Amino acid sequence: MDVEKLLQQVKDGKVSIREAAQDLKKLPYEDLGYAKVDHHRRLRTGAAEVVFCQGKADSHLCGIFENFYENRRNVLGTRASAGQYEMLHKKFPELRYDPVARIVKAEFEERELQGNVAVCTAGTADIPVAEEAAQCAEFFGAGVSRYYDVGVAGIHRLLSKREEICRANCVIAIAGMEGALGSVLAGLVDKPVIAVPTSIGYGANFGGVSALLSMLNSCANGISVVNIDNGYGAAYIAAQINRLALGKGGR
Amino acid sequence: MDVEKLLQQVKDGKVSIREAAQDLKKLPYEDLGYAKVDHHRRLRTGAAEVVFCQGKADSHLCGIFENFYENRRNVLGTRASAGQYEMLHKKFPELRYDPVARIVKAEFEERELQGNVAVCTAGTADIPVAEEAAQCAEFFGAGVSRYYDVGVAGIHRLLSKREEICRANCVIAIAGMEGALGSVLAGLVDKPVIAVPTSIGYGANFGGVSALLSMLNSCANGISVVNIDNGYGAAYIAAQINRLALGKGGR
Amino acid sequence: MDVEKLLQQVKDGKVSIREAAQDLKKLPYEDLGYAKVDHHRRLRTGAAEVVFCQGKADSHLCGIFENFYENRRNVLGTRASAGQYEMLHKKFPELRYDPVARIVKAEFEERELQGNVAVCTAGTADIPVAEEAAQCAEFFGAGVSRYYDVGVAGIHRLLSKREEICRANCVIAIAGMEGALGSVLAGLVDKPVIAVPTSIGYGANFGGVSALLSMLNSCANGISVVNIDNGYGAAYIAAQINRLALGKGGR
Amino acid sequence: MDVEKLLQQVKDGKVSIREAAQDLKKLPYEDLGYAKVDHHRRLRTGAAEVVFCQGKADSHLCGIFENFYENRRNVLGTRASAGQYEMLHKKFPELRYDPVARIVKAEFEERELQGNVAVCTAGTADIPVAEEAAQCAEFFGAGVSRYYDVGVAGIHRLLSKREEICRANCVIAIAGMEGALGSVLAGLVDKPVIAVPTSIGYGANFGGVSALLSMLNSCANGISVVNIDNGYGAAYIAAQINRLALGKGGR
Amino acid sequence: MDVEKLLQQVKDGKVSIREAAQDLKKLPYEDLGYAKVDHHRRLRTGAAEVVFCQGKADSHLCGIFENFYENRRNVLGTRASAGQYEMLHKKFPELRYDPVARIVKAEFEERELQGNVAVCTAGTADIPVAEEAAQCAEFFGAGVSRYYDVGVAGIHRLLSKREEICRANCVIAIAGMEGALGSVLAGLVDKPVIAVPTSIGYGANFGGVSALLSMLNSCANGISVVNIDNGYGAAYIAAQINRLALGKGGR
Amino acid sequence: MDVEKLLQQVKDGKVSIREAAQDLKKLPYEDLGYAKVDHHRRLRTGAAEVVFCQGKADSHLCGIFENFYENRRNVLGTRASAGQYEMLHKKFPELRYDPVARIVKAEFEERELQGNVAVCTAGTADIPVAEEAAQCAEFFGAGVSRYYDVGVAGIHRLLSKREEICRANCVIAIAGMEGALGSVLAGLVDKPVIAVPTSIGYGANFGGVSALLSMLNSCANGISVVNIDNGYGAAYIAAQINRLALGKGGR
Amino acid sequence: MDVEKLLQQVKDGKVSIREAAQDLKKLPYEDLGYAKVDHHRRLRTGAAEVVFCQGKADSHLCGIFENFYENRRNVLGTRASAGQYEMLHKKFPELRYDPVARIVKAEFEERELQGNVAVCTAGTADIPVAEEAAQCAEFFGAGVSRYYDVGVAGIHRLLSKREEICRANCVIAIAGMEGALGSVLAGLVDKPVIAVPTSIGYGANFGGVSALLSMLNSCANGISVVNIDNGYGAAYIAAQINRLALGKGGR
Amino acid sequence: MDVEKLLQQVKDGKVSIREAAQDLKKLPYEDLGYAKVDHHRRLRTGAAEVVFCQGKADSHLCGIFENFYENRRNVLGTRASAGQYEMLHKKFPELRYDPVARIVKAEFEERELQGNVAVCTAGTADIPVAEEAAQCAEFFGAGVSRYYDVGVAGIHRLLSKREEICRANCVIAIAGMEGALGSVLAGLVDKPVIAVPTSIGYGANFGGVSALLSMLNSCANGISVVNIDNGYGAAYIAAQINRLALGKGGR
Repeated sequence: MDVEKLLQQVKDGKVSIREAAQDLKKLPYEDLGYAKVDHHRRLRTGAAEVVFCQGKADSHLCGIFENFYENRRNVLGTRASAGQYEMLHKKFPELRYDPVARIVKAEFEERELQGNVAVCTAGTADIPVAEEAAQCAEFFGAGVSRYYDVGVAGIHRLLSKREEICRANCVIAIAGMEGALGSVLAGLVDKPVIAVPTSIGYGANFGGVSALLSMLNSCANGISVVNIDNGYGAAYIAAQINRLALGKGGR
Repeated sequence: MDVEKLLQQVKDGKVSIREAAQDLKKLPYEDLGYAKVDHHRRLRTGAAEVVFCQGKADSHLCGIFENFYENRRNVLGTRASAGQYEMLHKKFPELRYDPVARIVKAEFEERELQGNVAVCTAGTADIPVAEEAAQCAEFFGAGVSRYYDVGVAGIHRLLSKREEICRANCVIAIAGMEGALGSVLAGLVDKPVIAVPTSIGYGANFGGVSALLSMLNSCANGISVVNIDNGYGAAYIAAQINRLALGKGGR
Repeated sequence: MDVEKLLQQVKDGKVSIREAAQDLKKLPYEDLGYAKVDHHRRLRTGAAEVVFCQGKADSHLCGIFENFYENRRNVLGTRASAGQYEMLHKKFPELRYDPVARIVKAEFEERELQGNVAVCTAGTADIPVAEEAAQCAEFFGAGVSRYYDVGVAGIHRLLSKREEICRANCVIAIAGMEGALGSVLAGLVDKPVIAVPTSIGYGANFGGVSALLSMLNSCANGISVVNIDNGYGAAYIAAQINRLALGKGGR
Repeated sequence: MDVEKLLQQVKDGKVSIREAAQDLKKLPYEDLGYAKVDHHRRLRTGAAEVVFCQGKADSHLCGIFENFYENRRNVLGTRASAGQYEMLHKKFPELRYDPVARIVKAEFEERELQGNVAVCTAGTADIPVAEEAAQCAEFFGAGVSRYYDVGVAGIHRLLSKREEICRANCVIAIAGMEGALGSVLAGLVDKPVIAVPTSIGYGANFGGVSALLSMLNSCANGISVVNIDNGYGAAYIAAQINRLALGKGGR
Repeated sequence: MDVEKLLQQVKDGKVSIREAAQDLKKLPYEDLGYAKVDHHRRLRTGAAEVVFCQGKADSHLCGIFENFYENRRNVLGTRASAGQYEMLHKKFPELRYDPVARIVKAEFEERELQGNVAVCTAGTADIPVAEEAAQCAEFFGAGVSRYYDVGVAGIHRLLSKREEICRANCVIAIAGMEGALGSVLAGLVDKPVIAVPTSIGYGANFGGVSALLSMLNSCANGISVVNIDNGYGAAYIAAQINRLALGKGGR
Repeated sequence: MDVEKLLQQVKDGKVSIREAAQDLKKLPYEDLGYAKVDHHRRLRTGAAEVVFCQGKADSHLCGIFENFYENRRNVLGTRASAGQYEMLHKKFPELRYDPVARIVKAEFEERELQGNVAVCTAGTADIPVAEEAAQCAEFFGAGVSRYYDVGVAGIHRLLSKREEICRANCVIAIAGMEGALGSVLAGLVDKPVIAVPTSIGYGANFGGVSALLSMLNSCANGISVVNIDNGYGAAYIAAQINRLALGKGGR
Repeated sequence: MDVEKLLQQVKDGKVSIREAAQDLKKLPYEDLGYAKVDHHRRLRTGAAEVVFCQGKADSHLCGIFENFYENRRNVLGTRASAGQYEMLHKKFPELRYDPVARIVKAEFEERELQGNVAVCTAGTADIPVAEEAAQCAEFFGAGVSRYYDVGVAGIHRLLSKREEICRANCVIAIAGMEGALGSVLAGLVDKPVIAVPTSIGYGANFGGVSALLSMLNSCANGISVVNIDNGYGAAYIAAQINRLALGKGGR
Repeated sequence: MDVEKLLQQVKDGKVSIREAAQDLKKLPYEDLGYAKVDHHRRLRTGAAEVVFCQGKADSHLCGIFENFYENRRNVLGTRASAGQYEMLHKKFPELRYDPVARIVKAEFEERELQGNVAVCTAGTADIPVAEEAAQCAEFFGAGVSRYYDVGVAGIHRLLSKREEICRANCVIAIAGMEGALGSVLAGLVDKPVIAVPTSIGYGANFGGVSALLSMLNSCANGISVVNIDNGYGAAYIAAQINRLALGKGGR
């Protein structure tokens, strides 16, 4: 809706004051939503939509993917089970599946990756979360460097990569168990570190709580935390920061 | 230490191989540390040092501040009690104290504030944490806009500020109790949101845990979390992002 | 038992004092229970009985439903598995099953829906709990308006429904993850809000605890909370309030 | 702002389209807020304002009360310390203080109490929370019946009051320790029960968590829960329900 | 009230049926309560009353003790502070205070101690809880044997007392920290063991939770648990068991 | 070993001092253990052995039952799966299985049941734990009265059984969810109440924690608690108390 | 790399200063890692490698074992499922599997066991963790004495082994439920006790938390704790201590 | 008591068989205890006694110290308040107090320190716990090297000390907040690492729980954990290991 046009119509007597008042009532909500929703839509339902597949019904999931296919827009699904992929793949043969990252993806449009987000993990068991983060960040347009299995129990592996990691605009630190990787990285690199605790471990790790608390209590500077196993969430914020660093104020 | 110079001295026979080997042994650690430490030092012990005062002994605190005074460098202390301020003030009369933010500060060098970090709180009770965040962000060189008491129980107050907040490079969302401010902000603004849970509340807020969990589980995009009441930590990362957005890759 | 009649019989010498004393001994418990049990029975074992199916043995469940069938009374079962439905359906072909709400239901008597209870969810994943709430509220005689997927991460969706929701006598707010929907609704609508945390989410949501704490700590007015995923419980209390608003003091 | 008037002015050429568009931009937020804020204001800043005193600075508190005094409007402060009362009393001699309920209050306008809210406690130690609830409910215009020390360890005390309690439109059940009062009341009375866990107890009550969990897990129908010690919150929702039962749809 | 007498009066026409019906209405509750209340009263308000002093207002406490004094009945107060004792002592000079057990007591009637309850502690720091238990058990008429500082870290101390402890009718096992005393005692003695976790310790004892969980998970037979620091509660149940063992079925 | 006989042999020179010293060294442990072990064995490996089947390997379980069969002694296994029963039943055809209580049992010796233990449950879902308790108590020789589904949400059901329950020597109160049954029973009956929380429920019951905390914090007198779902443990202690009440000091 | 040799080459002009500087840059990280990694490699990837199998992909696991087979080095895998063993066994027929300890192992090199580590368990259910500990300790070269089912509920079993256990250089105490074994052992034996809580139990053991807290809060001297069920971790540290006691300062 | 001597006396008729049997009855416990108790006593009540002062009554504390003074034996008190020191100092002027470590100490006997225990802290705020550990380890006869403020946020500080720390027989790693120091140390040094979480921090550190969980979940080898702030406990076990490494099997 174009407010000025509406006002012109009021002025010209083409729309009654009462009708105009009625229309204007809904204006702000729609306006308010629009920019965001528009953008959102580009991100979530549009050109670059990310769908959280876990727990979604098959019919629901199909409907969402169909919408993207019809518009030949890129779509990426996280937390997709092998069964969900098979179901979707029958209908949408271009879909590709990464069973480690549990990501199902179709890319119709080319996408240039820019900037640099470093994705680091403490162990190999953290790789599924890391790949969710890395592939989502790439889907959002960020270049990604991967540094896996550089945990603090063998600190030399991390130290030998320090210089490379320093070149990133944002660092994603993924670790389960004691979760110390985030602190050590934030101590070595002066860029924002987004820490992702993982549920890897057993016993007193309490499904990722040990790593979560460790990361929240980091005594290093420049570290913030997302939910346990939330690779997608870290990728989103890292891509935001990467865009800002590239001089792109808003998406 | 200049490695090439040392090698030249070895070549020239001015330094023995044994001596050189001894010196080189410590090299990496120093080198490793240097960039970071140097920067660190500028941030923590140097020109723009932030000192965590809580629990520090008087003699210890005095020593730290003396060091800054002698070098006429800026210094800011967080979590400083009124008693600590009075003790310090006798020796360092230029010190200023903000009892709400519990910040003690001396600024000898001029500092130009650049960019824009939005600091928002849900209620008035969150203001002490917000002022710690805002004044630290300013100390790190960021321009700060304050939006206090814009919590979700009266959502119109927040909505009326949406456009202004959208102009910031990074948003700090500070809330206790149900901690919903972070989610709503991340839904309205497409910039990184650093959420700070506060210990404000009683009963089942468990000293800030309710807000912490709420923020970690946000279903909005672009939100990461720091420790309960950690205004300083949020300011640090917000200032990092602000610098990146201003095109200053490293501090 | 009619006390006055008994006393008359004592007076008339038709019942001995000892016998009467014996009878009177049990009186209060029966009386006490009666009104409540009667009502209760109408609600729970009678015309409008709700059965919690989860974990009930097949034979047990059959017996309960048989009782209703014989009396042609309405019956609704919550948390019914597909297997339970199939087992029951063979015996009671009129039974209908909603696999999303996990509700199995037979309605013999007509029922007019009165008043208005608004059932709102933050996301689509909360719909199973919402449908349990909505269908139970309807079973208890309340008119229900559904507002699904109006979570705070896209606040405009909720705002555009504000006026409609305000017309309800009671609002049920259903949300997992950060659970902020309850606070925002209570801030927008001046009717009692019954908040239902759901176990939707992962990691630090701890099976619904994040949403539960968020709702208990709401800084909005007029919000109270039921157990995680307890759609039935919210429906019961909402129907009570709805009846009161319709001028029906007791059920 | 009057939208139709503005449109008329546009039509009449008294206001330019650009100016009008600018004005309309802020409209919805203000409109949105208005009904609620207005009502809110009556409740919170106006005729019947409730102020949460705990943790508020003296100067802040004075300012708030001054505002009410100047307008001769009723005001009630919860969680007020004796010190805060003394400070306020010097300036506002009409203020009255109840040290048990920790309520400070000034009533300039007469207020008729209508309807009936029953406030019940398990023990005498729960009375401070109960009085906060009772006096707030009265402040919101509800008639209140008090039933103190009717906990389940001596169930006969509660049973002897059953009939009276049944006459209320809403029951507030306040209990610490094992918190069973809510369940028993909801089993006896077919009105909404708002349960308030209290922090009364020691050891494994964990500051009220035992009562809170007990109440959330009640197997009785018609019970919802507010935060630990939150007498005010229970009073607010009970007064809402009471008004609905009196046929007053909105406040 | 005597039911048979009332019925006789109805039969004799001295009381109308309506009046009798009215009277009978309240009967059960009073009857119900009577035996229990009577007994209760002997225990709680009467000859052998125990008062939980902590948190009680001075005026309230005075009133309770005055009642006992007037009737020259025994009274014992637990969790009494030194200040409370001083306040009470001025009015009731016969009161005696044990600052370790925090018990204030006046005994007017002689009391013969019968049977045997063993009260054991792991360390000396558990003695305050132990003395609360021991003195309450004596107040309830049980003979008490004390075995203090016999914790499992020096198991020989406990073993050397095994035979003596076996002679008790019931054993109270009081321990903080790792709380292992209960298990070892239940393994050595074939009498009911009432375990009392104490809040003694620091760090990961979480105010007694470590001992509480340890005791609840005991793999020994014949052990049940009361709340943290609840010496009184253990004494009550131990005295019940002791009376049963003495052939006194009910108090 | 007979110490006095050994000493006589030393005196008589039949045993050397060194040999005697060697023998005496082991004495206490054997002695210490003997009485207990002997008794223990009667309880645990002997005439009336109870075996915790859950998690035991098939071969292990077979060996244990074989031992009893050879000696024609009674044996009872708790937490036995249907699979374990089938496996055992092939070898030991006299075994009987109760799938509700998950108890597998063979009784060769007659056993007279004496005294009275009341086993009460809040709901029907608690019956598996209740039957474990009841059948174990009977196995230990106690008479058992069962009162199932007498929870506090319909208090009249419990009240109508009060007198009967009062006749027991010990009461076992079994409840999940809000766990209030224990408190109400302890308020009505002046015998030791052993409370068993169950894991029945969902959401914020946290696998039985809500009921556990409720029972530990009971404000009634005479209640102690065992682990969640631990029907066996409650039966053991109830049987101990029952024996004491029957005048049998030790088993 | 030999630093002195490099410096000599610089001095001799065989290597340019620039080249040398380049080489020296990586030096510390490599050096730093070397000793540790070398050792580590012996332990983890080399002669005596331990592989954590749980959750590892089949292809990954195969690759690791192949590497050992090619070099005929000893390898031990913990937490291996029967399925993983079968998969591996087909390729590597020398592999042996212990289904209780869930250990898969191939030993090509002889290994002399030295010193003495005592492995004790409270119950038979703790044996899987104990065998993981015992077999790992043996794999690391330690002699192991096993003392199973010596829990504190029958303290005489433990006491009768006291002297033997005292001869060990280090004691591993493994217990679930109340976890008291560690305290009693540390009270009896003056050697380091490594306590391993196990997840054995149910209800309020919270997956091993009860034993974990019990062990952390031990009031005995000389006890430290590892993660729940972490037999491997206890074995590693016990083997370290055993080697130290044998006069082998470093491995 | 000398058993062989007693037997000789029996043989010689100087002691009757009955008397000897009586004496022998107590033997095992004393014997059992003896070695341990004797040693214990040397450690705890004797030459090298450590007293936990916190919470001890003044009179109790005085009695303990007097005992040492009379025997001119060394004594060390941990967790001593300044007030306790002043009280003790008046009577025992040789006592010395360290307010940082909260240790009060009197050493009459010379003590040679042997071996090497490394005590490392993450920050300066951990020094009080570190000094408790260091001074206790010295009191137990161990040489101690201190490495303070070498936390992982500035990893170079720790790396530069790696070689020195490697020379210790045992390493104590003390850290609050994220507690990562233990993992990094165990990765760098192949000696047993005893990790001590501290309560230093705020918010989601939960009084040391974050560091505790981090340490328990360390993915490094050779690390075990003691209670939060338990410097004394770490010192005890480190001293045990140090003695073993020095070839002193038992103390």
